[in-house]
Amino acid sequence: MDHLARPTESTRDRSLRQRAATVIPGGMWGHQRAAAVPAGYPQFFRAGEGARVTDVDGNTYIDFMCSWGPIILGHRHPAVDAAARAQWDLGDCLDGPTEHAVILAELLVETIPHAEWALFQKNGTDATTACVTIARAGTGRRRILVAQGAYHGAVPWCSPSLVGVTAEDRAHIRTYAYNDAESLRAAAEEAGGDIAAIIVSALKHDLGKRQELPDPAFARAAREICDATGAALILDDVRAGFRLDLGGSWETVGVRPDLAAYSKAIANGHALAAVTGTERFRDAASRAFFTGSFWTGGAAMAAAVTTITELSRIDGPARIEAAGLRLRAGLAWQAERHGIEIVQSGPPAMPLVQFVGDTPEAATGEAFCREALARGVYMHHRHNMFLSCAHTDAEIDRALEATDGAFAAVAARTRRG
Amino acid sequence: MDHLARPTESTRDRSLRQRAATVIPGGMWGHQRAAAVPAGYPQFFRAGEGARVTDVDGNTYIDFMCSWGPIILGHRHPAVDAAARAQWDLGDCLDGPTEHAVILAELLVETIPHAEWALFQKNGTDATTACVTIARAGTGRRRILVAQGAYHGAVPWCSPSLVGVTAEDRAHIRTYAYNDAESLRAAAEEAGGDIAAIIVSALKHDLGKRQELPDPAFARAAREICDATGAALILDDVRAGFRLDLGGSWETVGVRPDLAAYSKAIANGHALAAVTGTERFRDAASRAFFTGSFWTGGAAMAAAVTTITELSRIDGPARIEAAGLRLRAGLAWQAERHGIEIVQSGPPAMPLVQFVGDTPEAATGEAFCREALARGVYMHHRHNMFLSCAHTDAEIDRALEATDGAFAAVAARTRRG
Repeated sequence: MDHLARPTESTRDRSLRQRAATVIPGGMWGHQRAAAVPAGYPQFFRAGEGARVTDVDGNTYIDFMCSWGPIILGHRHPAVDAAARAQWDLGDCLDGPTEHAVILAELLVETIPHAEWALFQKNGTDATTACVTIARAGTGRRRILVAQGAYHGAVPWCSPSLVGVTAEDRAHIRTYAYNDAESLRAAAEEAGGDIAAIIVSALKHDLGKRQELPDPAFARAAREICDATGAALILDDVRAGFRLDLGGSWETVGVRPDLAAYSKAIANGHALAAVTGTERFRDAASRAFFTGSFWTGGAAMAAAVTTITELSRIDGPARIEAAGLRLRAGLAWQAERHGIEIVQSGPPAMPLVQFVGDTPEAATGEAFCREALARGVYMHHRHNMFLSCAHTDAEIDRALEATDGAFAAVAARTRRG
Repeated sequence: MDHLARPTESTRDRSLRQRAATVIPGGMWGHQRAAAVPAGYPQFFRAGEGARVTDVDGNTYIDFMCSWGPIILGHRHPAVDAAARAQWDLGDCLDGPTEHAVILAELLVETIPHAEWALFQKNGTDATTACVTIARAGTGRRRILVAQGAYHGAVPWCSPSLVGVTAEDRAHIRTYAYNDAESLRAAAEEAGGDIAAIIVSALKHDLGKRQELPDPAFARAAREICDATGAALILDDVRAGFRLDLGGSWETVGVRPDLAAYSKAIANGHALAAVTGTERFRDAASRAFFTGSFWTGGAAMAAAVTTITELSRIDGPARIEAAGLRLRAGLAWQAERHGIEIVQSGPPAMPLVQFVGDTPEAATGEAFCREALARGVYMHHRHNMFLSCAHTDAEIDRALEATDGAFAAVAARTRRG
């Protein structure tokens, strides 16, 4: 498989891990914490280009994580990076915003049907937290309804971990079951007059669980409850935004939110987040206090303008879906041919591949990914993967050569028992 | 004053403000919200270089805000930007961290006496919030003692605004008076066994108030209370970090924290934040969950390594202090000569200039800054200002020509008044 390769020795990665173990808690934090990286996987990376990433030992892989979502046009997209560079060459972090803040806000308002304004930040968590604050400011209420197991960020009100979190951090958070309109109605009723918002993910993409697209009836119920009670419908589009539909991921089910949170793919890897909202919440958004030292930086906003413009020009979501469908069809056929039962879930642009009868930790999935990695393909066994516009037919077909070998290895393992 | 100039017409700024009024709540958010920008000040910027910034209408100013702190070596420092560019040219946001995460963590551990580990984020608020979470995780307690009026970020537990904030967001926050050891002791006693942390700013720099350096006796009391109770001493060094002392701002008073939050100047304008901590909190830091989509990006970390290395090589804090002292001496002499009583407070690197007898909104200070702006100098009347290594004697002397005119104008106004 030409220059895609997996080394027998990952010398530099091992040395960096040893050094990190001394100076970084747990060797790395968050998604990337050393304990969470599957055995045999590289932890440290050096470069990316198009659909490929290269680790610190010089091994190049076809990348199905896209940096956990941000890369949507391909690593180091020339036009996007040129836009960022034009501002970097003038200065990025200045005493106030650049014109790109206005140009980008105008572009979002033009592109996203519900959006009548936008504001910008750095992290997805900044955006989801701001949506909650704006919803509370706009409604004068407190209760936030969140789907059980949904990921909305990494601060106390929403973190998947309770370490260091107090009960009061979640005093006004109540849960419902995603795609279950009845449970949502019950949670809204229980909240009574104190319901500030319902927050929904674009789809159900809980770690390690089969993904579910939003049920249109559930989405409509969420909208109806908000309309009836005056609560804000918050769409957390951080993970899926711009990948499924440039107008927002719930355009696919015909339901529009009052507030939406974006980040990840908005600037093809440049650090940026955005909140968009309707006229009704403009005043609340202007009264609440949001700021960050680097939030007015122009380079990431210029990158976002180019990213969204380019996605629109080439119909990025359709391209990414086609790439995902090609991968899905190939994997399905390969699994069948090797006598392995798999479940592929989620939108083609954000696939999850699971093995029927696998352990809760997805041991078979992990073994499959390790075999794919050895053949030059970087996948994930429990977190949804991401495709990009750089996943051409040729790249998908190349990846499928690797996965065919990985399925064969898993089948052999299964036969050995 | 050669090419430093102030236009009679700020055409482009006005046009951007009009457009922003439609698509951005309040015309801009946070620090930069349109309502907070003094009349006559530009809101939108185009470029920076060394100690100067240029607004969208092409007017260049000697910059005493340094992008509200991040710029410490000067705008577009060539070595820092080259380090970032080397990683950008390979790809910034990849599937995992680059080697720069390890190199930077090692450098912080080497540079900051209390630091035995580091982790990285994007916003100052990310870092202060993580410190609180780590302190709670490490102590199993909840109460956090915060100085009245201190700024520690822009999320509900610490935001200066209560808009959209619930009472529970601050359930375990109690206040003390900065530099008042007795009030700190009383707050600690009141917390009883439930004290997780005392958080302190590097100095008292509350908006619009005379600044206060930390009283060594107060700093020692904070350390003693933490040692006696097992609480974490958190130093919020986001605003002052690397400007006063490369080892942390409380090295100046000989007191070391257990956890510290950095951001702003750490990478000379590249978006980055860091938490450093002692061995005692390493396990808590590895158990708590922190993550962000762009937190492993290598370019800002490479920029930080170069920033800190360069600050160390040239003794940046000493240089910045010398520049601040030159400015302070010049302003003091000018004020005296114009018969105007001013108070200059805070460290020379982070000065605040106030006019005796001014209104609570600092109307005279604002008038002074507007006059300075008209003469090519960008200052702030209520928020502390920032100097950088690019503020050479020549730049300071140039700025003082402008402030002399500004004092004259204020004196004339006072005589008329």
